[in-house]
Amino acid sequence: MKFIKAFYIFALLKIKVMPTISQRGANMPSSPIRKLVPFANAAKKEGKKIYHLNIGQPDIKTPQQAFDAIKNSNMEVLSYSPSEGYEWYRDKIVQYYKQVGVHIDSSEIIVTAGASEAIHFVMNSCFDAGDEIIVPEPFYANYNGFSRTGNVNVTPITASIKDGFALPPMEDFEKQITPATKAILICNPSNPTGYLYSKEELEVLKNIVLKHDLFLLVDEVYREFVYDNKTHTSVLSLEGLENHAIVFDSVSKRYSACGARIGMIISHNKEVMATALKFAQARLSPPTIGQIMGAAMVDVPQSFIHESITEYDKRRKVCIERLQKMEGVICPNPGGAFYLFVQFPVDNTENFCQWLLEDFDFNGETVMMAPGAGFYASEGLGLQEARIAYVLNSEDLNKAMDCLEEALKVYPGRLDS
Amino acid sequence: MKFIKAFYIFALLKIKVMPTISQRGANMPSSPIRKLVPFANAAKKEGKKIYHLNIGQPDIKTPQQAFDAIKNSNMEVLSYSPSEGYEWYRDKIVQYYKQVGVHIDSSEIIVTAGASEAIHFVMNSCFDAGDEIIVPEPFYANYNGFSRTGNVNVTPITASIKDGFALPPMEDFEKQITPATKAILICNPSNPTGYLYSKEELEVLKNIVLKHDLFLLVDEVYREFVYDNKTHTSVLSLEGLENHAIVFDSVSKRYSACGARIGMIISHNKEVMATALKFAQARLSPPTIGQIMGAAMVDVPQSFIHESITEYDKRRKVCIERLQKMEGVICPNPGGAFYLFVQFPVDNTENFCQWLLEDFDFNGETVMMAPGAGFYASEGLGLQEARIAYVLNSEDLNKAMDCLEEALKVYPGRLDS
Repeated sequence: MKFIKAFYIFALLKIKVMPTISQRGANMPSSPIRKLVPFANAAKKEGKKIYHLNIGQPDIKTPQQAFDAIKNSNMEVLSYSPSEGYEWYRDKIVQYYKQVGVHIDSSEIIVTAGASEAIHFVMNSCFDAGDEIIVPEPFYANYNGFSRTGNVNVTPITASIKDGFALPPMEDFEKQITPATKAILICNPSNPTGYLYSKEELEVLKNIVLKHDLFLLVDEVYREFVYDNKTHTSVLSLEGLENHAIVFDSVSKRYSACGARIGMIISHNKEVMATALKFAQARLSPPTIGQIMGAAMVDVPQSFIHESITEYDKRRKVCIERLQKMEGVICPNPGGAFYLFVQFPVDNTENFCQWLLEDFDFNGETVMMAPGAGFYASEGLGLQEARIAYVLNSEDLNKAMDCLEEALKVYPGRLDS
Repeated sequence: MKFIKAFYIFALLKIKVMPTISQRGANMPSSPIRKLVPFANAAKKEGKKIYHLNIGQPDIKTPQQAFDAIKNSNMEVLSYSPSEGYEWYRDKIVQYYKQVGVHIDSSEIIVTAGASEAIHFVMNSCFDAGDEIIVPEPFYANYNGFSRTGNVNVTPITASIKDGFALPPMEDFEKQITPATKAILICNPSNPTGYLYSKEELEVLKNIVLKHDLFLLVDEVYREFVYDNKTHTSVLSLEGLENHAIVFDSVSKRYSACGARIGMIISHNKEVMATALKFAQARLSPPTIGQIMGAAMVDVPQSFIHESITEYDKRRKVCIERLQKMEGVICPNPGGAFYLFVQFPVDNTENFCQWLLEDFDFNGETVMMAPGAGFYASEGLGLQEARIAYVLNSEDLNKAMDCLEEALKVYPGRLDS
C-alpha cells in the first residue's frame, strides 16, 4: 500500500518535472494560414494542384545583377558587418531614397534582417510592457506577434471594406488614445488590404501624432507598387514629423529578394536610432551577402521596377475583374501593394479555405487563401473575408479564379446574398 | 506681456512635443567595446596600427565550398525559406550532429539568423517579464541585452579567475534559486573565458535543473574549439535532460562564416520548439543564401576544422606564454573557444584600454581589448580584467603582446602587484 502511494507521488512528481514555456510564448499568435498547412499538404499528396494566393512571395525573377554581385565578390572571409550595416551599403540606400524623393543621411539608417527585425527593434526601442499602439485593422498579422513579444498592446481601429479600407476618421483614433498610447502604426500601401493612403490621410495622421505626442510608424515595403497613376507619399517627406516618423523598409518585395533578409529602419529621430542601434549591436550584424546584393540592386535599371509594376497591375486587374463578377463577392479596388482583401458570401472563410483544400477541386485544381480573421485584432471581425496575394502569372490567376467561381457555386456553407 | 507668456508656454510645449524612447530601450546595455570605438577610430586616423583582440571575428578563410555553393546555385527567385529553415538544410544539420555524436531529428531544429536570434526566440518562448535566469559570470555580454529586451532578470553566479573560471559550486547556484528562477544559461566552451566545462560539471548542472525544474540553456557555438586533448560534452548527449536542455548553435565560428547569419535552436522539448516556431514564423524566414552555404559547409572535409583548431591552439599558446611571463598579469589556461580572460595589474581596464588607444604606441602600433567589467552583471567586478580574442595570426599576436608588455611598463595607472 505504501509502495503504491509512493509510486503515485513519484508519478505525480515525474509529471511535474518539466519546465514550462512562458505565458508570452503561449499567447504568441500562430500565422493565420498555419492551421491550413496540413490540409494543403494533404491535398498535394492527393495530387491536387494548389494555386497559392495565401502568401506574399513574389514569383518575379530577382535581378541577375544581385546574383552577379555575389559571384563577382572575391570575399575570403565571410565576416560580420557593422551592426548598423556597411557604410557603403547605407550610402547606396541614401542614393535609392534620393531617387524616390526622400532625403536622408546614412546615419539615419540601420540595416536589419528583413523589415521584421526592423519592427522588432523599434518596438523595443520605443515601447514598454503595457504601452499601446493604435493600428488600423485589418493589419499585417505579424504586427500582433511583434507587439506580443514585447508585451505591447495593439488597439485596433476598424477600417471598413465598404470604404475600401480607407483611413478611419480622426475621431475614431482620438477616441482610443489613452495615456498609455505611444504610437500609430500603418502599412502604406497596406498588406493585407492593398490600400494606398493619400497625402491627405497622412496629414490627418500627422496632426494626431503631433497633437498627442505619438510616434508614427510606417511600413513602406510596398512603396513602389502603386497603380492607376496614383503616387505614394513617404511619411519621411512630411515636414514637422522628423522626430515622430519611423519607417520600416525592405528589399524583399521591391526586388523580389525575400530570402536576402535585408530590411532597414529609417528615422530622423536620433534618440530612436541610437537606441535601436543598441538592439542591433546585441545581435551583432545583419546578413553580409544580403547587403552585397542590396547594394547591387540599387543600381538595377528603373525598368526592372516598372516592369514589375506593370506585371502586378495586369494580375491585379485579372483578379479584381473576375472577383467583382462573382455574385455576392465584395472586392475593393485598392491602389497598391499586391494584395486584395475580399469578402465572400460564406459562413466563415476559415471553413471555406479549409474546404477548398480538403473537399473541393475543379479539374484537379484548387486555391489557397489566407482567412481574414487573422488580420483583425477585434474578435469576430473578418469572418467572411480573406486575403489574396496576386503573386502568380495571369494565366494561373485566371485558373485560380475559375476554381473560386466554381467553389462558390457548390460550397455548402454559402450564404444567400 | 501676454504675448511673451504665450510664447514661453509654446516654447515649453515645443520641447515636450517629441515622443520618448522606452525604458527598456534606455536600459539596454551598450556593447562593452562601444565606448572605445571613437578612440580606436582616432588612433587609426593618427596612423597607428591597432591589433584587434577585442572581437571574436575569426580571420580564418571561409571554406571555398561555401562560396562555390552560391556560385553554382541556379536560383532565379531569392525566396523566403520555411520559417524553421529548409528541410534539406535541417537534414544536413542532423548529419553534422551525428558526426559529433549527438542524435537529433530534423524536427528538433529551428534555423535562425545567427545564434543571437536563437537566444532571442528561446528567451521569449521560455521566460516572462520578471523571470530569472542564472548565468555564471563573466558571461557573453549580449546575454544581458537579450534578457533586458524581454524584461528577464539575470542572476549572476561569480566564477573566479583563480579557479580558471570553473563552474562555481552547486551551493552557489542553489543559494540564488527563487520561485522566479526558470533556467541556468552557460556557454560551453565559454565566451569570454575560454573555459571548457567538463562532463562532471555538466552533471552537476543536470542535477540542479532536474531538482528545481529549470531549463538548461547551453550556447555551444565554440564546440569544436577544444585543446590539450580535452573533449567537449554536448548537453544534448546527457540522458534525462530531454525536456530541459536547449542548445544554441551557429556556423559563424565553426566555419568562419559570421556574416552568413545562420544559427539554430536545438532541443528535444517539443513544446519549446513549437513555441519558438511561432516566433520564427513572425519573422518569416532565416537567410536563404546562408542556408545554402551552411549545407555545403557540413560537407567540408574534417581537415578544415582540424586545421582551424591547430591554428587557434598555436595562437592560444603564443598568448598564454607571453601573458604569463608579464609581471602581475594573471592568465588562466582555458581549454576551449578562442578567448582569454586576463587580469592586469592596472587601476581599471576601461582606462587602460582607452589609454592604449589614445596615449600609447609601440613602434606606431597598439592593442585593442574588451574591458572585463562589461562581461559581469555584478557591479564592481572585472575592473582589472579584459577579454582577448586570439583571432590574429601568431606573428601579429606576438607583436600585440610586445605592445602589451611595453604598455604595462609605462602605464600611469599601473598597480604594484
